[in-house]
Amino acid sequence: MNFCSKCGQPVSLRVPPGDQLPRFICDNCGTIHYENPKLVAGCVPEWQGQILLCRRAIEPRRGFWTVPAGFMENGETLMAAAAREAVEEALAEVEIGSMLAVFHALRAHQVHVFFRARLTEPRFGVGPESLEVKLVEERDVPWDEIAFPSGVFALRRYFADRAAGREDLHFAEVERAAR
Amino acid sequence: MNFCSKCGQPVSLRVPPGDQLPRFICDNCGTIHYENPKLVAGCVPEWQGQILLCRRAIEPRRGFWTVPAGFMENGETLMAAAAREAVEEALAEVEIGSMLAVFHALRAHQVHVFFRARLTEPRFGVGPESLEVKLVEERDVPWDEIAFPSGVFALRRYFADRAAGREDLHFAEVERAAR
Repeated sequence: MNFCSKCGQPVSLRVPPGDQLPRFICDNCGTIHYENPKLVAGCVPEWQGQILLCRRAIEPRRGFWTVPAGFMENGETLMAAAAREAVEEALAEVEIGSMLAVFHALRAHQVHVFFRARLTEPRFGVGPESLEVKLVEERDVPWDEIAFPSGVFALRRYFADRAAGREDLHFAEVERAAR
Repeated sequence: MNFCSKCGQPVSLRVPPGDQLPRFICDNCGTIHYENPKLVAGCVPEWQGQILLCRRAIEPRRGFWTVPAGFMENGETLMAAAAREAVEEALAEVEIGSMLAVFHALRAHQVHVFFRARLTEPRFGVGPESLEVKLVEERDVPWDEIAFPSGVFALRRYFADRAAGREDLHFAEVERAAR
């Protein structure tokens, strides 16, 4: 951040009075520009034991596999965001279930939240952000070609819980943005 | 948003190619400025059956009561943010427990996440953002003077679950920012 989004004049990085951390503050109008983590919402969609995976058509990690997930928009819930991403990336209608995982990508300033989900019917397709979309058995998950560590975490916990007959909520944190 | 935070030139609100929603786009350098919900993290700190509440010294809702909560910072986890807010607002060390509630304040573009928590010792005080801090029994919670509807939601679910001997995760959404 170089300029104030309110008045267009330069900002500088300073600790505001009463605060603990440096913030971008406008030298002209005094607006304090706080920067906070962004939410990514996704789901693990299941149909008769198989999981829906998408191969990314966009960077970062083009060509790698992912569960449907993306940045949450203003005005929607986490569950609505997760369901919307399934529509956009896999043309799939899902019913969102329990919260599965919260993954903190600390250096990327992101919090990834994944839900369990169920395809409402066995219909899906290749959305504009995907190269390929398919249902896979657990044994066929391309673990070495999963795009992001949060997706690996969500899928591993999903399968472990399913095998154990439980639906827990799992937390993780990593420093780096991608593996 | 009126100006580009990268180059300082005016932005206009347009739908970028391939997108579904209008974004602020710089007319000069082309940067797309996405706006996303902000995370608020808080906890319900308990000590021997009593709950720690803070009376707000700052706007909005100055003079009203709240559980410790505030905007999450970059580089921390939700649990670390919730624990930090207890230190800042109530000078209290807490041990964060299970996730209690996710409250979507849709029009405010905020997601509030609350955890169960336990004071590690019966020590607390009045932080710079508080007028007063105290431990209260459930029957003494000043329900009509709780600052935000998300706090009411978290406290109600906390007590209901405690009475039932369970620790569920609860979801809610409201359109408006404050009651």
